[in-house]
Order: sequence, then structure tokens, then C-alpha cells
Amino acid sequence: MNPQHPDVDQISLSNVLAALGDPTRLAIVAELARKGDGPVSCSHFLMFTSKTNLSYHLAKLREAGVTRTEVSGTSRFTTLRRADLDQRFPDLLASVITGASTADESEAQTT
Amino acid sequence: MNPQHPDVDQISLSNVLAALGDPTRLAIVAELARKGDGPVSCSHFLMFTSKTNLSYHLAKLREAGVTRTEVSGTSRFTTLRRADLDQRFPDLLASVITGASTADESEAQTT
Repeated sequence: MNPQHPDVDQISLSNVLAALGDPTRLAIVAELARKGDGPVSCSHFLMFTSKTNLSYHLAKLREAGVTRTEVSGTSRFTTLRRADLDQRFPDLLASVITGASTADESEAQTT
Repeated sequence: MNPQHPDVDQISLSNVLAALGDPTRLAIVAELARKGDGPVSCSHFLMFTSKTNLSYHLAKLREAGVTRTEVSGTSRFTTLRRADLDQRFPDLLASVITGASTADESEAQTT
């Protein structure tokens, strides 16, 4: 069974910003964008954090409507909900991804 | 004595997003923008929350580099650091303010 996701019109700006307001989650979103928005195997993001923390961070992104997580067999894949976010909050995701790529957000590795 | 503020190059994207990721703080930032970025007397924002909560929310915005708070006699005034944020993260603040104005973020009154 796939995890729950908010509908597009239920995505809240404050929830999206709170979900993005963490160095590890910013790194995950920037990596998804770098890989063409996904789907990317969730285990790929173990490069940023421990297994326990990763589940937490991916759930925060999913529950806020930033990402979609789908189960396929024993694997889980994450996709960036770019079209949904662009529809709700034009230019927001693009500016965040640009900021995450150019700014010094290297603290991600330590959380 | 005026409170401490981060320099422009110390402003972190994840801190800014975390500071903005709250309905009350989004409402404060949207109101600052509506009033021409300030300075606005901090007491004006008591329309959004209680006195105790307001101090907390204004400190979060100030410490993240989103706003500047200055003391003048017995009053405190808050200004949006738009130029600093635009320099660090182009288009981010504009997209957040647009999103906060158009989306249903009316939950601000309840926090």
C-alpha cells in the first residue's frame, strides 16, 4: 500500500516551507532536481543521513506535499511534485533549488 | 541596545525557510510587504498572535535574517530585509509573499 499524500489544493505554504527548512531535506530536494525530479530510490538519499533519520525526513517532505513516495516490491521511490508545487506556488520551488545549489548549505552532512 | 542580526552572507536558506514555515510568521512577513517592507511597530502584529508568542515569532524571523528589529525609545520596529534576501536567494521572498497572499493561509489567527 502506498503512503498518503495531500491533494494539490491541500498543500499549505507554511507546511512546504517548514518541510524545506532543514539542510538534509533541502539536500534531498536539490538531489531530486539534479536527477530530473525522480523517481529516485529512497536508499539513494542515505548519502545525506542515517536510515532512521531518512525515513523521518522523507515523511516530512511527503506529508507537506513536496514529494511523492511510491512502493514497488521491497523498494520505495521518491518523486519531486514539481508540477503540483508550481501550480500552487509559482517560482517557489525553482528559487529554493537555485538557493540550495548556490548557497553554502554544506551543513547537510552533519544532521 | 539593538538585538543581534546575521550579516547578509551568514543568512542560511534552511534557516530562512524554517522561519517562514509557520502561518503566523508568514502573516507577519506578508503584512510587512503590504506596508511597504516597514519599519512597522512590532505591536502592530498583535493582530496575529498574543504578546508572548509575538516576541518568539519576531525573534525567529530576526535570527534567520528575514527581518531587522530596531529599538527606538520604548518601541520596537521591524523591517523586512528584502534587499539582503533578494541578494542571497533571488525570487524566493517574492514567491513566498505571493503564495502567502493568494493561498489559504488563514490558519494564522489560530496559532
